Amino acid sequence: MKKNILKKIRAIVGDAHLTTAREDLMCYSYDSTGMEYMPTAVAFPGSAVEISSIMELANKELFPVIPRGAGTGMTGGSLPIQGGLVLVMSRLNRILEVDVENQVAVVEPGVITGQFQAAVKKEALFYPPDPASRDFCTMGGNVAECSGGPSAVKYGVTRDYVLGLEVVLPDGRLMHTGVRTAKGVVGYDLTRLFIGSEGTLGIITKIVVRLLALPTHKKTYLVLTDSLRQAAMLVSEILKRGILPNTLEYMDQTALHVVREYLSLELPQSTRALLLVEVDGDENSTEEQGKKFLGMLADRRTYPGILEVRQAHNEKEVDDLWKARRSISPATYKLRPHKISEDVVVPKTKIPQLVDFTEKLSRELGIIILTFGHAGDGNIHVNIMVDKDNQEEYQKGQTAKRLLFEHVMSLSGTLSGEHGIGITKAPYLSLELDETSLALMQSIKSVFDPNNILNPGKIFSTKSH
Amino acid sequence: MKKNILKKIRAIVGDAHLTTAREDLMCYSYDSTGMEYMPTAVAFPGSAVEISSIMELANKELFPVIPRGAGTGMTGGSLPIQGGLVLVMSRLNRILEVDVENQVAVVEPGVITGQFQAAVKKEALFYPPDPASRDFCTMGGNVAECSGGPSAVKYGVTRDYVLGLEVVLPDGRLMHTGVRTAKGVVGYDLTRLFIGSEGTLGIITKIVVRLLALPTHKKTYLVLTDSLRQAAMLVSEILKRGILPNTLEYMDQTALHVVREYLSLELPQSTRALLLVEVDGDENSTEEQGKKFLGMLADRRTYPGILEVRQAHNEKEVDDLWKARRSISPATYKLRPHKISEDVVVPKTKIPQLVDFTEKLSRELGIIILTFGHAGDGNIHVNIMVDKDNQEEYQKGQTAKRLLFEHVMSLSGTLSGEHGIGITKAPYLSLELDETSLALMQSIKSVFDPNNILNPGKIFSTKSH
Repeated sequence: MKKNILKKIRAIVGDAHLTTAREDLMCYSYDSTGMEYMPTAVAFPGSAVEISSIMELANKELFPVIPRGAGTGMTGGSLPIQGGLVLVMSRLNRILEVDVENQVAVVEPGVITGQFQAAVKKEALFYPPDPASRDFCTMGGNVAECSGGPSAVKYGVTRDYVLGLEVVLPDGRLMHTGVRTAKGVVGYDLTRLFIGSEGTLGIITKIVVRLLALPTHKKTYLVLTDSLRQAAMLVSEILKRGILPNTLEYMDQTALHVVREYLSLELPQSTRALLLVEVDGDENSTEEQGKKFLGMLADRRTYPGILEVRQAHNEKEVDDLWKARRSISPATYKLRPHKISEDVVVPKTKIPQLVDFTEKLSRELGIIILTFGHAGDGNIHVNIMVDKDNQEEYQKGQTAKRLLFEHVMSLSGTLSGEHGIGITKAPYLSLELDETSLALMQSIKSVFDPNNILNPGKIFSTKSH
Repeated sequence: MKKNILKKIRAIVGDAHLTTAREDLMCYSYDSTGMEYMPTAVAFPGSAVEISSIMELANKELFPVIPRGAGTGMTGGSLPIQGGLVLVMSRLNRILEVDVENQVAVVEPGVITGQFQAAVKKEALFYPPDPASRDFCTMGGNVAECSGGPSAVKYGVTRDYVLGLEVVLPDGRLMHTGVRTAKGVVGYDLTRLFIGSEGTLGIITKIVVRLLALPTHKKTYLVLTDSLRQAAMLVSEILKRGILPNTLEYMDQTALHVVREYLSLELPQSTRALLLVEVDGDENSTEEQGKKFLGMLADRRTYPGILEVRQAHNEKEVDDLWKARRSISPATYKLRPHKISEDVVVPKTKIPQLVDFTEKLSRELGIIILTFGHAGDGNIHVNIMVDKDNQEEYQKGQTAKRLLFEHVMSLSGTLSGEHGIGITKAPYLSLELDETSLALMQSIKSVFDPNNILNPGKIFSTKSH
């Protein structure tokens, strides 16, 4: 990037909001994949108008622009793989409106998801999407990746809460999509085309979301089992009985191991899996669901693999459980310095087959594979732990990844439930999408971004990372 | 359309499945708008492969193809406004799979929505979208228009239940979108781009939907009020109290009048509006919601406009209420021979302002305007009744329509909640969508359908109908 271009960017965002200092660039060179790509410069725009000017310039000078939230992405979506200008959205961090009566809010993309949830909670309102990184990740990033979280089993994902967007297109035009109302079907659904497009079609500058009434009650349980398969079968059984928890998470033995310091409980020696089950709603319905759940487990002969069932009795116990759950992903690095982190999804009834397969893979290849995640919707986080400097182990990890994806496809599953494709899954895209889909998607990308300057090389790249 | 083209179409679908007889063409020349456009021919394809061959031919010979479900659309989406070949999907009417354990089903587009609901009900499963025409309309049409219905206030619209699609593109290529799993974010969201695209981007040949566990209990109530405004305010109040009914419908006095034969109840002289309220769920939660609702209404001093609150005591009473609700739209033709039917949406709190406005419009212009519909999500059906042969009245109707749309925009509303744009709202599209949106949508149309042969002239037409 030439000096005169940087000068122009500086003129747009102001002196204080552009940096090319190496120590600054490093802070925006990585994300949760652990991969690193240095940007040429990092800007912190203060408005949609500034972003619009930057995109106009980028089209003239043809440099890549990469929007970035908090860098908590799991597939490299915000990495500047071709260098260029990283646009950090941290200054666009205002909750612009909470319309309590209509249960609608308008936020800027840099708002931290957890902080937004806390803000609407004060009004007895509820924004369900709850990625494990919610204390750091941003609403804009969540929209770009269509993030989920534990509550998705009952409440759905980000896509289900976004009503409309303000977006700066790659050519600098500012546009609005969607509605502020409960329904809307006027023209093509551009809102949902942007959702999950991983920052490749436009830069989100405002988000209109719908909110729910805050559930007034909840009950949290944990179940320990002596096999993964028993845990997986319980998940199916819970849902089959018409219990719809707002959380139906599981952790395998290895995941439990890495977070056991957070768990204020003794694990029986034979523990192989933990289920975290939470039901919520109004008082009566929470009571009824809790009863149904405990009733189902009462006859232990039906589920010989259950070691213990425990209800969290106070907020501290609930918090501990959640802290443990949310700490798994970062804590895995205790095991090996790198990981290949996948968030495949299979139909719920196929979870036992999937966990059997990952156990077999781990055994046969002699590498650590841990699984945890959103069992209730079949969205399993498979973490293949490797040391990249150990070439043999790394190759085994890559082999495990490909075999996993092929197995997931054979189970009618999908490569990603909530992390997106980014760069880490791009080489595998054709396992899932037919040629026609890929061609159409690339044509759509060309309509929005004819010069391929916005977050280039993502989703459709065929280069292996 | 030349004879040799018809011969080729005949060869594709078989002799019995193509017609050019005038009396047949007439049957497929109209929809629920009451407008008529004669097609050149009508084919009844038997498979996606046949549809694919037809589209290849259409691209070579450049004739318009118009997919059609049951012709219950409210905005002309299935009308052959430029002539051409109407593709009736009635032979693609199989429920291909109901996967009970994973709560997923696969259907062909010609399946009648109500029949599908009945089929999954047998498995204690629930497909919520319930357009008033559900006994006739098809799943394919519902997807094309993103249909809603009374249950949308609690359960959402068609968009919220479609996981994936099989589609024949305008150039004849067959493709698959989406997933069979609870979640998925792999590439751009083509599934939701097709949903609500009104048959302009592709022809849907298979639909994968998610299902819910069937609610076991429900309670149905009706409330009569002496003013529209009182009814509208009750709607806001019900939702504010955390009651989430699966139905929160209202009918104004004129709507009540046209369906009173279905209502097995005496209406007090001063009745101006009726609210139909239904809560569902498990036993406890239905009980709790019902109590909350009646508790709220118990102090009549707070709601002086309530004339009567009644609970339906048996299935017959419930059925009567629903029959009345579903009959409004066809029954309106008793009043005047034609109607301008709109399904605008406003934020819930603005419903009183909207109904005040339509009453004022009716009074000032001296024409019949009735309102009814999905008050719970702010989606109000405004029926402007006219006689098209009375030029003055028709013009007043058109004036009312434009003033209504402008008012809805000023209330942060949208032109359509569930009927789409079709041809009847196309001239007003720019009231809601900015130039950039319109340009992008048209570019997307060109990517999918470069020869503009699939359902041409819809959504983006500027001609007035």
